[in-house]
Amino acid sequence: MAKEQKLVKEITSMEEDFAQWYTDVVRKAELIDYTSVKGCMVIKPAGYAIWENIQAELDRRFKETGVENVYLPMFIPESLLQKEKDHVEGFAPEVAWVTMGGLEPLQERLCVRPTSETLFCDFYKNDIHSYRDLPRVYNQWCSVVRWEKTTRPFLRSREFLWQEGHTAHATAEEAEERTEQMLNLYADFCEEVLAMPVIKGRKTDKEKFSGADATYTIEALMHDGKALQSGTSHNFGQNFSKPFEIQFADKDNKLKYVYQTSWGMTTRLIGAIIMVHGDNSGLVLPPRIAPTQVMVIPIQQKKEGVLDTANKVKDALVAAGLRARLDDSDKSPGWKFSEQEMRGIPVRIELGPKDIEAGQAVVVRRDTREKITVAIDALALEVPKILEQMQKEMLERARAHRDAHTYTAHNMEEMKDIADNKPGFIKAMWCGCQECEDALKEEVGVTSRCMPFEQEHVSDTCVYCGKPAKKLVYWGKAY
Amino acid sequence: MAKEQKLVKEITSMEEDFAQWYTDVVRKAELIDYTSVKGCMVIKPAGYAIWENIQAELDRRFKETGVENVYLPMFIPESLLQKEKDHVEGFAPEVAWVTMGGLEPLQERLCVRPTSETLFCDFYKNDIHSYRDLPRVYNQWCSVVRWEKTTRPFLRSREFLWQEGHTAHATAEEAEERTEQMLNLYADFCEEVLAMPVIKGRKTDKEKFSGADATYTIEALMHDGKALQSGTSHNFGQNFSKPFEIQFADKDNKLKYVYQTSWGMTTRLIGAIIMVHGDNSGLVLPPRIAPTQVMVIPIQQKKEGVLDTANKVKDALVAAGLRARLDDSDKSPGWKFSEQEMRGIPVRIELGPKDIEAGQAVVVRRDTREKITVAIDALALEVPKILEQMQKEMLERARAHRDAHTYTAHNMEEMKDIADNKPGFIKAMWCGCQECEDALKEEVGVTSRCMPFEQEHVSDTCVYCGKPAKKLVYWGKAY
Repeated sequence: MAKEQKLVKEITSMEEDFAQWYTDVVRKAELIDYTSVKGCMVIKPAGYAIWENIQAELDRRFKETGVENVYLPMFIPESLLQKEKDHVEGFAPEVAWVTMGGLEPLQERLCVRPTSETLFCDFYKNDIHSYRDLPRVYNQWCSVVRWEKTTRPFLRSREFLWQEGHTAHATAEEAEERTEQMLNLYADFCEEVLAMPVIKGRKTDKEKFSGADATYTIEALMHDGKALQSGTSHNFGQNFSKPFEIQFADKDNKLKYVYQTSWGMTTRLIGAIIMVHGDNSGLVLPPRIAPTQVMVIPIQQKKEGVLDTANKVKDALVAAGLRARLDDSDKSPGWKFSEQEMRGIPVRIELGPKDIEAGQAVVVRRDTREKITVAIDALALEVPKILEQMQKEMLERARAHRDAHTYTAHNMEEMKDIADNKPGFIKAMWCGCQECEDALKEEVGVTSRCMPFEQEHVSDTCVYCGKPAKKLVYWGKAY
Repeated sequence: MAKEQKLVKEITSMEEDFAQWYTDVVRKAELIDYTSVKGCMVIKPAGYAIWENIQAELDRRFKETGVENVYLPMFIPESLLQKEKDHVEGFAPEVAWVTMGGLEPLQERLCVRPTSETLFCDFYKNDIHSYRDLPRVYNQWCSVVRWEKTTRPFLRSREFLWQEGHTAHATAEEAEERTEQMLNLYADFCEEVLAMPVIKGRKTDKEKFSGADATYTIEALMHDGKALQSGTSHNFGQNFSKPFEIQFADKDNKLKYVYQTSWGMTTRLIGAIIMVHGDNSGLVLPPRIAPTQVMVIPIQQKKEGVLDTANKVKDALVAAGLRARLDDSDKSPGWKFSEQEMRGIPVRIELGPKDIEAGQAVVVRRDTREKITVAIDALALEVPKILEQMQKEMLERARAHRDAHTYTAHNMEEMKDIADNKPGFIKAMWCGCQECEDALKEEVGVTSRCMPFEQEHVSDTCVYCGKPAKKLVYWGKAY
């Protein structure tokens, strides 16, 4: 068994060092590799296949709501970036600048898009003329660049993959509706597909997107009690349409400025999956997002009939619509078990000569290690049920973990105690002043994650200043 | 009819000015828009949906051959780009350079990838250790940048979308096999899906990819008689693995350098579809790649039962697996016909009160304008057949056009006459010297498109110098 356990031994346990555990998992599960380009990563096949599944499922849900995909340039002329004041202040310090094209210096430098509001505005300015052209509900899948100082695979890198939706509407109500619709779509996707419960809410002015009237967010709790902002949806009102002059002739023949939104999700979600579901044997993938859902592992595969039956089982599972594979490599079964666990494949099927003789196989769930004996003929019927059960229980477990790590602070003493000793979300009232927000970051080390849509009233006064409270806020340490 | 015809009138006829016709079609069919970023375009929903279909179909075919998708950084450090001598000479003059990250100058400048051979090599160097790790058959979908001086939508732009496959193999034979396999895959895709016949062949040394031992290409003939290189597949031998030190321990325990290939197709294919199939009413999309295959257009749609029946027809077509839509906007039927034609939707179904009374509808093919009367109940059965017939005939027509515009030159007199008066491919023998190739470009204005795999012997001597001929070459003017 020594060799089989080596793969696992190479991961640090999450209780010992969560950050190192995370790094070990992304490397040992072969999700990424580092590169010669500082702060940028290679997304390897096992990692990219997760992203492909995220893309396919999100794209399908987008299109059901009328979204159309487009592609805009990756470069933004400096003058364009500068048109919206808050926006340029937010992004200019962290963009990469192209200053040479071929052998010649450029007349105007171009930044590599950190986000594409300005490009979409420049496009919509000429594309939208009449109320008949509205709404525009466009999205693009692309990579963006932000020149971060410290980086971590998936969570914060200089280049990352994402989708960015950019819409234009005739009325403020419609823009608000779309902003909320996309946040709800994101939340449903996280819960239904990634088995990841989220808190939906609004960002404070300090934390909102540069240029937005309102930023809505979904916040998830990682296994170590830190929060991860997992998707955001912004309502811009007319903040961009005015400087960019995006006007349309309305039904009443008057020229009006459009109302805009944008919303995005990124490869960061892969980091979230790792940190919500992973364990000390590696990755645990929710069945609905797993590139391989079932690995059939033959025991004593050289004995007559074993590989044959294993192949038939795999084929039957594929025919039943599952993403199933057979590991018939010459590694030992124990090694294959460790690999399947490290890569987070939801279920493995162990199948040896004795099983075949008895007409049965052993199905092992990755999350609970539960062993379920199933008749070989019934696998194509039973394994989908086991996967659905696993998906459901993973969400329940994640929700229970999140709830068990959500605390309430009524005063600064409680706030400090929780922040120091109990990693998780902290619910506490806030007066609405940025000074208190700044002070909580400075003194307690927490930031406001969101003002949840489902407001509660846990006390009358701001946890910091004691003045009358306006909002319940989820606070926490965040990635 | 005046208003209906306006949409069409706005396109220049292709006989009058082919270049202007092309530009008119890409704009009026709403495939692209120009941007403030010189040489870069917006790919609008109608254009991007074609690319999505190309991607889905190519990706499916790739995966059937064992390809796995990955994502590598968009930046290449200058020192990495310089490792392979020919490669850097080929690409350095046309790359965009990032010199600032945030507010600080970079220590080493980074180019935005024009292609990713050097990045894949840098990755494979650490990723490949043993013969067990081979082959590596990776691909990525991304955008690349080449700082072109003159640009045209889809055909030549500073940024374009593509896929680039990069493989590593243990033997030269395997690399050669993969190079040819992917070229064949590209050719089959063009013929079967885009209805576009291609000539498969090898590029001369002058025209091959910077750093390759051999470049294979598929060349298609556009409606104006110019050639378009539509996909390439390169065999690098060990040209990259040696400077990048990509070695593996072979079965005999010896360290060996891997053999590599790369292959790519781009959004240029959309330009090819336009120029092979389009006509003076606009775009004509082959049914298999068309985002919308059928547009149901009601006549007198306000009359009772018309929209109802039109909707049922649309639903029945969708249920039959077709990409069908209903145009129930308040535009006139004539305007809708013009729009459907401009956008190249393969088939429209005209459906008015009289048709409904007679239990039939009129199906109009976009390519031939043929009108086919079909019983309403039979539409879901008949329209797929009509589309398949159209797909087949579009390929046949394109092949007939290509064959009718392929000429043979036995000497320079014929060569000049054809080049001046008969736009198309010119088959002529070549001695193998670059001097003759250069002279033909200088004196006749043609470049070597490829040495076709299916060699013929049309004369004994080189068309230019009269020395013994080595190869038949397809020559032509090209995009």
